[in-house]
Amino acid sequence: VDSAVFSTHMALEARLRLPLAGPTPATAFLSGSNPKPCHISFSLKPTSTSLSAANAPPPIVVVGSANADIYVEVDRLPLVGETVAASAGHSLAGGKGANQAACGGRLALGPTYLVARVGDDANGRLLEGALADAGGVRLDRVARAPGAPSGHAVVMLMPDGQNSIIIVGGANMEGWAPEVDPEDLDLIRQAGVLLLQREIPDWVNIQVAQAAKGAGVPVILDAGGMDAPVPRELLELVDIFSPNETELARLTGMPTETFEQISQAAGACHKMV
Amino acid sequence: VDSAVFSTHMALEARLRLPLAGPTPATAFLSGSNPKPCHISFSLKPTSTSLSAANAPPPIVVVGSANADIYVEVDRLPLVGETVAASAGHSLAGGKGANQAACGGRLALGPTYLVARVGDDANGRLLEGALADAGGVRLDRVARAPGAPSGHAVVMLMPDGQNSIIIVGGANMEGWAPEVDPEDLDLIRQAGVLLLQREIPDWVNIQVAQAAKGAGVPVILDAGGMDAPVPRELLELVDIFSPNETELARLTGMPTETFEQISQAAGACHKMV
Repeated sequence: VDSAVFSTHMALEARLRLPLAGPTPATAFLSGSNPKPCHISFSLKPTSTSLSAANAPPPIVVVGSANADIYVEVDRLPLVGETVAASAGHSLAGGKGANQAACGGRLALGPTYLVARVGDDANGRLLEGALADAGGVRLDRVARAPGAPSGHAVVMLMPDGQNSIIIVGGANMEGWAPEVDPEDLDLIRQAGVLLLQREIPDWVNIQVAQAAKGAGVPVILDAGGMDAPVPRELLELVDIFSPNETELARLTGMPTETFEQISQAAGACHKMV
Repeated sequence: VDSAVFSTHMALEARLRLPLAGPTPATAFLSGSNPKPCHISFSLKPTSTSLSAANAPPPIVVVGSANADIYVEVDRLPLVGETVAASAGHSLAGGKGANQAACGGRLALGPTYLVARVGDDANGRLLEGALADAGGVRLDRVARAPGAPSGHAVVMLMPDGQNSIIIVGGANMEGWAPEVDPEDLDLIRQAGVLLLQREIPDWVNIQVAQAAKGAGVPVILDAGGMDAPVPRELLELVDIFSPNETELARLTGMPTETFEQISQAAGACHKMV
């Protein structure tokens, strides 16, 4: 059970009243906060977004993270002072915000905008290229932040399936102006839904959720990302809060091993706001 | 004492009989096998290479590695299964071959060619861009190897100055055709000097050193790179072998703490071939 996918899925159907085309393509991208970052698939074909303005549904707007995930396969972690050779390595575009946007783009219901900050560097080009290739994602609001590297994560994969991760927030955390760009806020006010996660600063999420709330735009917050309490100010602006089992257990202190336990924990979570 | 720089420096003066302009710019780039990878400086300005063909000295040809060095600053290494946040991160172009080429380019004596393999990926663009910005390096023979990532290294920096490194050989190790490109060999035969290191396969070094030897082109091998014995077949093709203190100690089993010890170890090293 991936409750993040489930509830986001529900939200898209219930709030936007838009049919989901085919067998839930969303699940390929929205991984909640699984410790292994998931990726934008490069196999997607661009979908047509040539709807006339009059008939086009309002855009999905994702505000969030874009991250270069740098995988290295090692027999073991190096010791302090040691150099080890990886058996393989590759880098892929990811980040919870970019993944949500790639999913939205694939739904092909209307335009999907990603509001994100990347660095003016090679990883930034990787992210922009992958999002362009994913198809259906409008990159107008993906801005290059001067002076900060693109967010990236080093994922050290070991033969037994274990991994260790080092995350560099970079532009995801440092790339935002103190006041969110008015153009971004205008876009959000015209959205059909605003999707958020927790890999960018809480104060950015609060500003954009306030803009959405003021315009009657539903706000969905995926609990995935930083392991810190969700500020009450943010929670109160959120229409659908979407933790996965691990996050739900952390938030409620309750077990989430079985469907019954998850139901009870979800009930407790509802009473927390 | 960085014996690698010293002897390469000597080699350029003695073999090419070309004056070194100013106070040894080479030292900024040729770091031997210091455990912390050194970088191509981005502050360099391109230098003029518009010498007429008749008067131009023969090219410096470097065959070797180009590597994206990914630095992440962490309080400590993550445990297995753990995710930690880095306080900072940045990626820079490096690799012993690219560094030697950047140095050669800066000497501005004539053309410097780098023969290297990068991946068709974002790190490859980073490397090509940095080499172009370094100035004076001809990139005609830097080829994009399909199917292999650009070589890269994750350098985990800790507050006490310690570091741990994971190296992905990528295109540096896997990007070479079984027979080195005849165009590369032709270039090497016309060179004034061939510079090698040990971050690409020995069999590539052997092929290119054979081409150089057959054409009377002096071959300089920097001992930095992989920690494995130098094949005798390669050593016999080398005119100047250039270890730093650490490598010299490893090769001879002798101490290299003082100048006297280094002299004795260098003498012993000479007798090994």
